Formats: sequence, C-alpha cells, structure tokens
Amino acid sequence: MVQLEEAQEVLKNTVHFIEETEKVVLSNAIGRVLAADAVAKVDQPPFPRSPLDGYAVRGSDTKGLTKEYPGTFRVIGKIYAGEVFEGIIERGEAVRIMTGAPIPDGADTVIRQEWTDYGEDEVRIYAESKPYQNYCCQGEDYKKGDILLKKGTVLDGISIAILASLGMKEAEVYRLPNIAVISTGDEVVQPGEPLKSGKIYDSNLHLLYGRLAEIGIRPYASVHSKDSAPHMAETIKSFVDQADLIITTGGVSVGEKDIMHEVAELLGAEKLFWRVDLKPGAPTLSMVFENTLIICLSGNPFGAAANFELLVRGVIGKLSGNPRWNMDKKKAVMQTGFPKKGGVRRFLRAYHEDGNVWLPAGKHVSGVFSSMIGCNCLVEVPEDKDGVMKGDSVWIHLL
Amino acid sequence: MVQLEEAQEVLKNTVHFIEETEKVVLSNAIGRVLAADAVAKVDQPPFPRSPLDGYAVRGSDTKGLTKEYPGTFRVIGKIYAGEVFEGIIERGEAVRIMTGAPIPDGADTVIRQEWTDYGEDEVRIYAESKPYQNYCCQGEDYKKGDILLKKGTVLDGISIAILASLGMKEAEVYRLPNIAVISTGDEVVQPGEPLKSGKIYDSNLHLLYGRLAEIGIRPYASVHSKDSAPHMAETIKSFVDQADLIITTGGVSVGEKDIMHEVAELLGAEKLFWRVDLKPGAPTLSMVFENTLIICLSGNPFGAAANFELLVRGVIGKLSGNPRWNMDKKKAVMQTGFPKKGGVRRFLRAYHEDGNVWLPAGKHVSGVFSSMIGCNCLVEVPEDKDGVMKGDSVWIHLL
Repeated sequence: MVQLEEAQEVLKNTVHFIEETEKVVLSNAIGRVLAADAVAKVDQPPFPRSPLDGYAVRGSDTKGLTKEYPGTFRVIGKIYAGEVFEGIIERGEAVRIMTGAPIPDGADTVIRQEWTDYGEDEVRIYAESKPYQNYCCQGEDYKKGDILLKKGTVLDGISIAILASLGMKEAEVYRLPNIAVISTGDEVVQPGEPLKSGKIYDSNLHLLYGRLAEIGIRPYASVHSKDSAPHMAETIKSFVDQADLIITTGGVSVGEKDIMHEVAELLGAEKLFWRVDLKPGAPTLSMVFENTLIICLSGNPFGAAANFELLVRGVIGKLSGNPRWNMDKKKAVMQTGFPKKGGVRRFLRAYHEDGNVWLPAGKHVSGVFSSMIGCNCLVEVPEDKDGVMKGDSVWIHLL
Repeated sequence: MVQLEEAQEVLKNTVHFIEETEKVVLSNAIGRVLAADAVAKVDQPPFPRSPLDGYAVRGSDTKGLTKEYPGTFRVIGKIYAGEVFEGIIERGEAVRIMTGAPIPDGADTVIRQEWTDYGEDEVRIYAESKPYQNYCCQGEDYKKGDILLKKGTVLDGISIAILASLGMKEAEVYRLPNIAVISTGDEVVQPGEPLKSGKIYDSNLHLLYGRLAEIGIRPYASVHSKDSAPHMAETIKSFVDQADLIITTGGVSVGEKDIMHEVAELLGAEKLFWRVDLKPGAPTLSMVFENTLIICLSGNPFGAAANFELLVRGVIGKLSGNPRWNMDKKKAVMQTGFPKKGGVRRFLRAYHEDGNVWLPAGKHVSGVFSSMIGCNCLVEVPEDKDGVMKGDSVWIHLL
C-alpha cells in the first residue's frame, strides 16, 4: 500500500519525456507541443506600414495646415498593400497610399484621405500631422530574432496564427505518446453485441478511450481481453513494442479472477506498487515490462475514472511535455455536504465554479457513472475526516 | 453602425439550428452534440450484483455467527462474473461468488471471503451479515426507462462511457456546421512561400482555421482570395451551396481595395449591417447570399480575432446547438490598469483566473498578435470610461 503522492512520483519517475519530434501542417497542429522556439526571421511588420488609406508625406511639410489654409502636394505615385514605391518622397511631395502598404522612404506620416481633396496629380491637404502619427513602425509587433513562442508551448489558434505570420506552414512538435488501452472481465461484452444474462456492457474501455480522445490523444490500440492470464499476457506482449504506456482495467483485486498479478508473473514484469491508500480505486497495480509502464486500474468504473485522473494524467503530462495533462489542484469551499465515516482518503466527483464546489445530487456509490455527468473536479476528503460539510474548505483536483 | 448586442442578435436570427443528424462511432463522438435522449433499455446493473469475492447466503442464516461460533453452510455452486447460478439458495446453503457475478435468487447478502474458511463443499462462516449488506441492487446506477443523457448533451469521456454502458456502439449526433473561411489582401502570401518586398504572411486565415479547429470544427474550405471583387464573388459562389456559414477577413473598410462592398453588390446579397460600435474590428460587415450568412471580419488581425469571438461564436453555437460555443461573460476585478481615452466601447485581450483579470504586459496595439498569447478573455471597457484601472470591476467575455 502506497500513498497517492508516492504512487504519482513512482509512475512519473518511471517514464521519460518523449523527445522525438515530427513536422505537422498548421491545420493539424492544434493542441500539439512545440518542439523548437519559434523565432522571428524578419521584423513584423517587415516595413513601416500605413494603417489607413491616405497620402504619405513628410510631417514637417504639413505644419499649420487647415481646411482654410490647405497645402498642395505633388502626387508622385500610388501604392496598394503588397506593392512598393521605389522612390524617395521629397519636400512637397506625396504618395497615394492604401492601408497595409509600406510607407515610402522620406515620408514619416500618412494623412487620412478624409483630410484631403482626394487629388490624383496634386492633392490638397487640410490638416497637419506629426511625424510617426498614422505610422505603424517596422517591428512594432515583433523584431527579427525575437522568440515568439517558446519550445514547449501548447499550440492554440493564436499561436498557430503566429507561426503562420512567421511564414511557417508546418510546426515541429513532439510526437504524441502511443497509448494502448485494455479492458478485462468475462462479464463484459462490447456495445452493439447482444447482452446475455449475467453480462454487462463494457464501459471502462470507452471511458478511457473517450477521456484520452477528449484530452487529445487517441489510443493506437483499444481492446478487451478475457479473464485469462496467459491471454492477457500475450495481448500486452503484442502491444509493448509500440507503446509508451499501457492502461488496463480490472483484475487487480484479490479474487480468483484477479488475473493481473499472474500476468505480471508470466511477463516477468517488475511490479512498482499494488494498492494505493485512497478510495475509490485502491487496488491499482503498476508494473514495468520491457521498459514500458503498465498501469492497471480498478475494474470499478468510478475507480477507473478517478484513478485515470489522479494517477495516469500526470504520466501522460510527463511523456508528452503537455502541462495541460497534469492535474491542478486548488482550494474551494463546499456548498453541499457529504457525511461518511472516515478512515480512508476519499475522492468525490463534484462541480466547481469560482472557488465554490457542489457534489452532484445523485448517490456517491462507486461504480455509478451517471452521477459523474457534468463533474469537473474531484473533492479530496482527508482520512481523518468523517466526510465533508457545507462551508468546509477542501482541496479540489481539476479534471 | 449597430451596437454589438444588436449585431449579435441579427446574426443569430439569420441562421437556423442544423437539425440534420448522423451516426458516428463512439470513438469519434467526443465533443459532438447528442441528437436523441439516451434512454436505459435495462436496469444498471441489470441484476443484483456481488461487490466482492465471497459466499452468497441468506443474511438471516448468519445471525450471531463469530469466529468462535461459526456456522457451516453447504456450498451448492460457484459462479464468476458473467455467469449465472440457475438454482435458488435455501436455508443453510451458500454459493461461492466472485465480484461482479449476479447474486443468486434466495440470497440477500454476500459474506466476504476473508470471513470464511474458503471451504469448497462446505464453508465455515465467521461473521454475521445483514440482508442487502455487500449487495449491489439491480438498477442501483439507473433504471430501465431512465433518461441518462438528454438530447443536446455535448459528449465527453464520461457520457461516451454511459452510451457504451447502454450497449450503443454509435451515437446519433447533429451534423457539424460546414464553414468556409476566406482571407483577402493582395499584400499577403501563404506561409511556406517566399516573402517579397512589401508583402506579409497570411495569419488571419490560419487564425480562423486554428481557432475553429480548437473548438472542434474544421472548416471544409479555407482559401485566400486576391483583392478583386469579381474573383471574390466567384469564390463565394463556389462555396455557398455547401456552406452553413462563410467567414471572410479584410476588405471591409472604406478604401479603394475594400472590395467586400462591391462583392455584396455583385452577388446581389442582402446586407445585414456594416460597422459595429466597438474597437477593434469596427468595420465588420454581414450579408446573406442564397440563404447563407456571410460574416466579413476586419483584416486587422486582432480585430478579426476579437470579432470572431464576439460575433461569430454565437452563430456557431446556434447552428450547432453546442452551448460551449456561445460566449459567456462574467464580472472580474482588474489587477492591472489600461488608461486610454474613451469614446468607444473597447475590448482588450486579458487573462483571468478566480475572478481576477490581468492585461498582458505587451502593447495593446491592434494587430499585435504576440500579445494575445495565453489570453483567455476579453475585457470590456465601456464607451464612457477612459480605460480601466486596477481594482475596477469589469465584464469579461470568456474565450
């Protein structure tokens, strides 16, 4: 029997961050972890840019101009965004310029077109403008050499846009962990099959697959194994070459059908720990076989669900370098109570918002899936407390 | 010029919730919206179930039993999970039973095996057990006919597991909206292409694609159009048959290259509004062409990003029936200040946590992408305020 924190440490210390990288096109890079700093190769904007449609001039030429006392400028060119004016603007000259176009050399401001007579060969300007007014400086957003996204950034829409603005059509990201999921239990059948007497549908496999998919990792294998230790050992052997992590459910307790202990022996795997001091999901077992970590969760659905969060997520965080997969905890105040005899460290599914936490109205029976709907945290009830009461300050672990 | 709330209403009223449904396998159903109530066809568990390994007996037979005064029972069978014992347990009889197996008729409790001598033909029982102790009732989790997930539920790992427990291998979900994204601007080139003088890389297209992918919808088309009204009109025509929504960026202001007004005329589209009373992104334009809503965002990257959140997300929420895509707002307290002359309703990108909100350290220049990294909300600065100050209570719009 180990404490939860010890179990978390042991599991995390058993796996290594996956340093292999791959290139993915930007449209597939959402949620992936950047494997190299994204460095600006040019200033952004790469040139002084006009923020509006108007006339680029020397600001000093416009001093004192008003509607009553306009100035007349010779229009020596016209540029749209994407074009370049090759000459230099001298005193008394203007270039017609559109939003986004590079401000020509010599000019230091752009006169908004509404302050002019929109002249084509000559333009009358009705207002004065100071140098660098209506002028987006080169490198205003970022400068060549700036690190815009650090290695390790989890890519979202904004960071994808930043990579695009750097001219990158692909992102170099860390490979995702390869995870295999195996459920056990002769009593379970797969959804879609007929349900014979004494059987139930396999929900654990779909819980783990679904939860992994939800956080962005599709298991490369997800199968059910019958309750036969040799069969389960063969199944694990067939996955171990490719897997960074294998997660199983069921067969970890002390009964005759609790095959995972025998599986460990058949494989010659190194057991890390068996039994964690918490409820639900206490009988969690872990082992290492051919350098691959195998975490064997309880077959009890809520035990499997809770221990996936408490024990497995941190491992995936370490493997992937994605901090979102580590579990955060914080303090919150109970808005409902749950009296229950103490003596064991207990985790209750709950909903939190703005520092308050509510237990679902349903029953807190292990194995009751339906009460987990809409929950976004686990409330920790310490071993020495008889449940929790309204108003108690508790630790919540965020899902 | 319309107010933000009016623009939001107009846009939402223009589109219809997409009632078409499709069946997807559970492993692809994460994030999708359930299109039919998920109703239990059988009780769960479908039979009274043993929660542990032991012996099923009549509780009344065990009254007063202790280690010193054990009772001896005749073992009339043995069942594992997934098996069924066909007989009835009479007085003085026991059935060896494993975790998850159905408790046979006649028995009303299971004696934990540690409280017995593990006998095979006869078993000695060392403790008393009350009826329905160590007994999972049929229908304890849910009963036949219970609605477990309501139509409209957004599927996550837990709800996928519930569908699996109901025996469903597929979920009936609403079709996702078909969205096309088009960026404009002769000055932009696509990432991966060489950057000529005066040009910049297209980030808006990737911002919109990335943000849509982040919330779970991959645009079925995402292209760049040159600044030619006829060309853009043709591009829109080519997408309009399939699209539930078309989003464009750029060309919406008042300059010569602001082609979207001409595009609307060429298409004969019905303009809904042009210009929204907010900053950034004021020149947003919207129109309807062949029953398809077209929202034309500013070409300014932060304008496009902010108005995607403020104007487009609600439309996607309505189309898809997915409440996660509506934008929530709540009150928070500024932990940093941003003095800025008022006169316009302004939205600033910021980071909030537990009711507090911080502006990023970078500059608040429209078009500065890099300062948007890590932001998770927009702070609203009312028109009549000169910016916000530390300690101000403000509305934040959650990203």
